[in-house]
Amino acid sequence: MKNNRYIVIVGCGRLGSHLANQLSRDGNSVVVIDSDEATFNHLSPDFSGFRVNGDATHMAVLKEAKLNKADVLIATTHEDNVNLMVAQVARRIFHIPHVLARVFDPRREEVYAHLGIDTICPTSVAAEMFLRAVADRAADKEREQI
Amino acid sequence: MKNNRYIVIVGCGRLGSHLANQLSRDGNSVVVIDSDEATFNHLSPDFSGFRVNGDATHMAVLKEAKLNKADVLIATTHEDNVNLMVAQVARRIFHIPHVLARVFDPRREEVYAHLGIDTICPTSVAAEMFLRAVADRAADKEREQI
Repeated sequence: MKNNRYIVIVGCGRLGSHLANQLSRDGNSVVVIDSDEATFNHLSPDFSGFRVNGDATHMAVLKEAKLNKADVLIATTHEDNVNLMVAQVARRIFHIPHVLARVFDPRREEVYAHLGIDTICPTSVAAEMFLRAVADRAADKEREQI
Repeated sequence: MKNNRYIVIVGCGRLGSHLANQLSRDGNSVVVIDSDEATFNHLSPDFSGFRVNGDATHMAVLKEAKLNKADVLIATTHEDNVNLMVAQVARRIFHIPHVLARVFDPRREEVYAHLGIDTICPTSVAAEMFLRAVADRAADKEREQI
């Protein structure tokens, strides 16, 4: 697999910085946008991408991050509205082929799908893992009792 | 699998309430603890468990939730320190057989494992899913070009 894509990540919190570090390490050109400069401290020393300090809901900031060149955009902020807006602009105006967004309210996933945006809901994913862990342990216990 | 376990959930935010609703629906006896009464609004109308309004780091609150009877405890608050403290008390003092905790800082997972506490880190899980989605799409594209 080729790893020389241009990837824009919006939000440099725990999730955004983790993705930025990993995707940069894998050989991609990564740009991270965050309005809070302090969040760039989450980036590892070997992060070889660019940092854009600004509000991603402003067109000028997206242009500075060269969204027109991007192959992938990932919206990871803590605000569903910000992620939805940025993802929509990325698809509709900048025609970025692959747009992904973190979504907190699973009821919004349908809206995203309609816009051609992939979504991942960390709460749902985590809930599923907890439920599976609880069920697995209960099944183990039952087997022990047979 | 029997679903008549006594399950205590600490924190009634998005994750905690999702788990409480599902585990109650599955036939378990569920108790949810949260210091913010408003969070109980996340519970669905058919939630048949109990609500304990109080700070789970206080022994009196844990006793009110009858931790001594619990088969499972899940710590889901947004504070790693609170989750660690409650999970530890659940294991060491109340001897709850299965204790799980949400953890935000993956570096803490080792401490939990040492204490016999299962952990799930939603950020790591979500990050993995995003990375897989990005890699899958890139692989699809390469296949198209062959």
